[in-house]
Amino acid sequence: MKRKMKALIKEKAGPGAAIIHMDIPEPGPHDVLIKVLAASICGTDLHIYNWDKWAASRIKPPVVIGHEMSGNIVKVGSGVKTWHEGDYVSLECHKTCGQCYQCRTGQAHICRDYSILGVDIDGCFAEYVRVPETNLWKNDRIIPPEIACLQDPVGNAVMAVASVDITGKTVMIAGCGSIGLFAVGVARVLGASKVYAVDINDYRLKIAQKMGSTSSINPLRQNLLEEVMLGTRGEGVDLVVEVSGNEQCLLDALKTLKHGGRIALLGIPQEKIYLDLANDVIFKGIILAGITGREIFSTWYKTSALLKSVLDISQVITHRMRLEQYEEAFRIMQLGECGKIILYPD
Amino acid sequence: MKRKMKALIKEKAGPGAAIIHMDIPEPGPHDVLIKVLAASICGTDLHIYNWDKWAASRIKPPVVIGHEMSGNIVKVGSGVKTWHEGDYVSLECHKTCGQCYQCRTGQAHICRDYSILGVDIDGCFAEYVRVPETNLWKNDRIIPPEIACLQDPVGNAVMAVASVDITGKTVMIAGCGSIGLFAVGVARVLGASKVYAVDINDYRLKIAQKMGSTSSINPLRQNLLEEVMLGTRGEGVDLVVEVSGNEQCLLDALKTLKHGGRIALLGIPQEKIYLDLANDVIFKGIILAGITGREIFSTWYKTSALLKSVLDISQVITHRMRLEQYEEAFRIMQLGECGKIILYPD
Amino acid sequence: MKRKMKALIKEKAGPGAAIIHMDIPEPGPHDVLIKVLAASICGTDLHIYNWDKWAASRIKPPVVIGHEMSGNIVKVGSGVKTWHEGDYVSLECHKTCGQCYQCRTGQAHICRDYSILGVDIDGCFAEYVRVPETNLWKNDRIIPPEIACLQDPVGNAVMAVASVDITGKTVMIAGCGSIGLFAVGVARVLGASKVYAVDINDYRLKIAQKMGSTSSINPLRQNLLEEVMLGTRGEGVDLVVEVSGNEQCLLDALKTLKHGGRIALLGIPQEKIYLDLANDVIFKGIILAGITGREIFSTWYKTSALLKSVLDISQVITHRMRLEQYEEAFRIMQLGECGKIILYPD
Amino acid sequence: MKRKMKALIKEKAGPGAAIIHMDIPEPGPHDVLIKVLAASICGTDLHIYNWDKWAASRIKPPVVIGHEMSGNIVKVGSGVKTWHEGDYVSLECHKTCGQCYQCRTGQAHICRDYSILGVDIDGCFAEYVRVPETNLWKNDRIIPPEIACLQDPVGNAVMAVASVDITGKTVMIAGCGSIGLFAVGVARVLGASKVYAVDINDYRLKIAQKMGSTSSINPLRQNLLEEVMLGTRGEGVDLVVEVSGNEQCLLDALKTLKHGGRIALLGIPQEKIYLDLANDVIFKGIILAGITGREIFSTWYKTSALLKSVLDISQVITHRMRLEQYEEAFRIMQLGECGKIILYPD
Repeated sequence: MKRKMKALIKEKAGPGAAIIHMDIPEPGPHDVLIKVLAASICGTDLHIYNWDKWAASRIKPPVVIGHEMSGNIVKVGSGVKTWHEGDYVSLECHKTCGQCYQCRTGQAHICRDYSILGVDIDGCFAEYVRVPETNLWKNDRIIPPEIACLQDPVGNAVMAVASVDITGKTVMIAGCGSIGLFAVGVARVLGASKVYAVDINDYRLKIAQKMGSTSSINPLRQNLLEEVMLGTRGEGVDLVVEVSGNEQCLLDALKTLKHGGRIALLGIPQEKIYLDLANDVIFKGIILAGITGREIFSTWYKTSALLKSVLDISQVITHRMRLEQYEEAFRIMQLGECGKIILYPD
Repeated sequence: MKRKMKALIKEKAGPGAAIIHMDIPEPGPHDVLIKVLAASICGTDLHIYNWDKWAASRIKPPVVIGHEMSGNIVKVGSGVKTWHEGDYVSLECHKTCGQCYQCRTGQAHICRDYSILGVDIDGCFAEYVRVPETNLWKNDRIIPPEIACLQDPVGNAVMAVASVDITGKTVMIAGCGSIGLFAVGVARVLGASKVYAVDINDYRLKIAQKMGSTSSINPLRQNLLEEVMLGTRGEGVDLVVEVSGNEQCLLDALKTLKHGGRIALLGIPQEKIYLDLANDVIFKGIILAGITGREIFSTWYKTSALLKSVLDISQVITHRMRLEQYEEAFRIMQLGECGKIILYPD
Repeated sequence: MKRKMKALIKEKAGPGAAIIHMDIPEPGPHDVLIKVLAASICGTDLHIYNWDKWAASRIKPPVVIGHEMSGNIVKVGSGVKTWHEGDYVSLECHKTCGQCYQCRTGQAHICRDYSILGVDIDGCFAEYVRVPETNLWKNDRIIPPEIACLQDPVGNAVMAVASVDITGKTVMIAGCGSIGLFAVGVARVLGASKVYAVDINDYRLKIAQKMGSTSSINPLRQNLLEEVMLGTRGEGVDLVVEVSGNEQCLLDALKTLKHGGRIALLGIPQEKIYLDLANDVIFKGIILAGITGREIFSTWYKTSALLKSVLDISQVITHRMRLEQYEEAFRIMQLGECGKIILYPD
Repeated sequence: MKRKMKALIKEKAGPGAAIIHMDIPEPGPHDVLIKVLAASICGTDLHIYNWDKWAASRIKPPVVIGHEMSGNIVKVGSGVKTWHEGDYVSLECHKTCGQCYQCRTGQAHICRDYSILGVDIDGCFAEYVRVPETNLWKNDRIIPPEIACLQDPVGNAVMAVASVDITGKTVMIAGCGSIGLFAVGVARVLGASKVYAVDINDYRLKIAQKMGSTSSINPLRQNLLEEVMLGTRGEGVDLVVEVSGNEQCLLDALKTLKHGGRIALLGIPQEKIYLDLANDVIFKGIILAGITGREIFSTWYKTSALLKSVLDISQVITHRMRLEQYEEAFRIMQLGECGKIILYPD
């Protein structure tokens, strides 16, 4: 009789998810099977759970959700040569085509024909997950599982913050969801002289402070532009990392930029945004950079090295729960009263 | 009795301009006086002539208009050491503060406290113009006056096109006004493999072809996105230089970008624009770069060296007129039946 | 009975090579078999033929030599999905490990554990060659076989020249072997304002001129430094591409660099070289960049796109010979009385 | 009667220096006069004091030595508009021409026609120093004088370390003189994951450790290459900052570089260096970057911002002395039993 495993699955179109028992997947010739030690919930998982417009258009149930994890390889496919049983790994969730212009020029993170684990194919909120060998990242045992599973979102933050030289520069993190919180920490350890954390959620601003923000701005109570101009002698900030996806926040943040500044756009706006390109971009010589995913595997090298040395992200983890407590976990996510929630399938 | 000179002046708020006779300006200690050999009309001059919304808000008449020129120094101020009578020069029209962060870090073109010759202070549509010594660029006599006066707008094109490595890349020039036409030529001599020229004006598309465009697209007759995708195996272009300022053109051009591509924004949109940042920027890893002016003087070095070697822009000059014919000149500009118009004050 | 093929082979340690008849290789699961249409001789092949110090230390006979080629796929391995019989291809000669830091961060051309076709494993001076699928580059039929086989060395030139923005800059190509000759052409189509070609061989300087050099310098008759300083108003050149490997040439070229200039080092010096780092590098803010191979496949995209559009390298091909004429070919190479020699195995 | 001031002067060719009383200099129209609060001794000052080969060829006595300082402006020239009595400033010691290619393209630190305060013209080891207005940097009072005077050498370190993205990278500081010690601190606050400090002086290695080095290597006792390879899984370091100027150290450090790595050369070798360009540079794709001075004023902005936020350099200051104690100060420098020595003229 085939062994079964627990898995958190989106069974059918509509809100919610369910834990089922399903067959442990069998690795193909170029796959490995991983026993999941720790997983973490991403905003994307919440979108899928809530079954919002994006999820409805993208997800084809049934699918095991989840894409942030760490674990041990327990089985390798027949053609796998460089990975072995017992290897402690995490996974890059973008399964890329390897053939397009982007894949062949070191830009696989913007591959034109990719699928995502936990979105398009079965993911990691389960006891085991099957992963193509090309998506594996080897972890150092010095990084505990609950930190190692976070390398995917920390990588987003690293890619956004390290996209320009921020030595002694001023940085604004617009939106203190988990990527924003990681970005605060990353900006701090990469030599930013000032780090503004912006959110309407005071709980998260408090975590941002623990991560090293030098100023907190809650736009519900404070005028974002005034605060920044006051603190930067009227010059504005060098870099904005926009992770809120909120229109007003993005527009205000854009106005705080120094002439010649840059805004990294990661947060996904729900609607089109009405931009004053003449005054906010062209005359000021501003650069807007769309950022998605993380470089495969340049960003992974940077991220894991930071986590092993100068970057402590433990303050962002606010909840540790069992996989079975997923309903409670998503409820807390919904309320925003959390940093990062770790799920243990075992 | 003081000697007088002819000058084309915006005398008072409202459309039009007039030639008057006024005192030849006296150079201050750090200025020079230049006898203008050739000048050229920029879109900005047309805005001022027409007295549009922007002009009404910015211009304080009376002011001599014009900022693109070449000429000979005829007098130097008492403190000027490195410039001499007889020097053949052109001018950078941005008079920058020299003290702000941007000026002190090699980004004077986005100085936070600048004024523009021919806009905020007297310009060059005159027999003589007074210019601060820091704004001078020494010309090589091998470049004739009617070409030398065009280095300002050619510089815009150079800055936009040379902002990334376009070796063997595909480039779209969206808008074939004079900067667009120069950009076609620049893209061609910097190794672009394909150069799409886009405009609704066939007269200008014909000039673009002479400048080296490999495909012309008139959106009134052709589907921009389809044409580009057909010609790029569905990948899109690497770089768009947006010089139309037209909303629809900008939005369409953005959609033609390859994943990881870049759009240089130079054309000034009249209104705010709704952008689909999620699909057109973030998921594709696109960079939008606002570009204004040209680097002082990095771009001037590149531009003049190109004009002395591989870049022939003579096809863009469609009209040569005397300063007194300014009304006819602006009428032609208005109709769009021209490339660049050269004015001779003498 | 197994079919046989002609192949030019280094049979044993020592000078020379021989044509033998050997089994046509069988592609492994992730290989393809290519019918060679055209191949070209590289300086490396001459080193192997002559059995110099480097060759003696590296080559393990017997091995089929040659690594520059174009041809049609005639058979694909069982696991090959993206390549098909009839595909017209060239090959990247570095077989890289795919696992090291360099391979996983877009720098496979400096992989720490690679082998080279035609050096470490059987190459392409034969009727057929077996190639790993990851080393294939798909050609456009618009590029004829004798040009397509040259993409490997043209790629070296592209990588060296396009490593910095040379818009309107002055470039020196130090050494007019075939990579140098290609570099002259590449510099020209990427917007260099002046291109100095340097060699002691007048035959090759003449080809350089056809490729677009604006000045030829033969150090046997001319003072390199004086010529350059005269032609650059005493400033020196922006970029040197050193492909001679000759000590004196390298040292002289270094001295011609402008403050802040760059020298791309491709030519392999036979011995160590004494460098005046203080005066020639540090005080002048010079960058020396070691360049080997070409980016996989970023450089290939650029190279093939240039060859399909603005770059004509046909002048560099001086000889077309049958594979059987290899002795004559190597004799001509030795004398230096050639540009590039194409070999046809069929 | 004119007021006099104390000044440490190189009076004539030969070793040594002397304190004299001389006229307080009068600022020219574009100069200011500064009352020196604190100054620091640079290796260059020691070369001049010792009258080594370089000093003998460069220095034209008499000249007041010293170029690192902070102080208050006490008088401004008639043409000075943006600086005022009472301003708390430091100085960029390179007086650049403002006219050459380098000066006009944002690279004034490698100006082709410059002079240095304290070397070519009177410097700051005195009660007062006269400085051109273009060389001034405004300090924030939050930075104490003994730290503010160190921005010149800290700037060298910032320019060397921040020349590439070192996020999570491994860095070696070869040579722990004061610039090396600052570089250790800078590398640490810019996100290096490992910082190797190398010196044969254990006193200085101890300071390096306080500045944040993660490993100390004394080549008198340890094998540099072995230690680094052991600590980097055989890959080598990403960046070497060479500040020793010592041939063996430079050669060894070069061999520790990862494929694709970079070495910033700041230390001035006394002699030519015999380099294996083939194996140590070309085949590994290494970049050697000559670094002199610091960017004017980009590096100053970064440096002062770091000093006001995340970079603490107080551990490097080991001695505080009165100007009159200069003989003792130079004796200690000679012995190497110091970090940085601060001199107070008052």
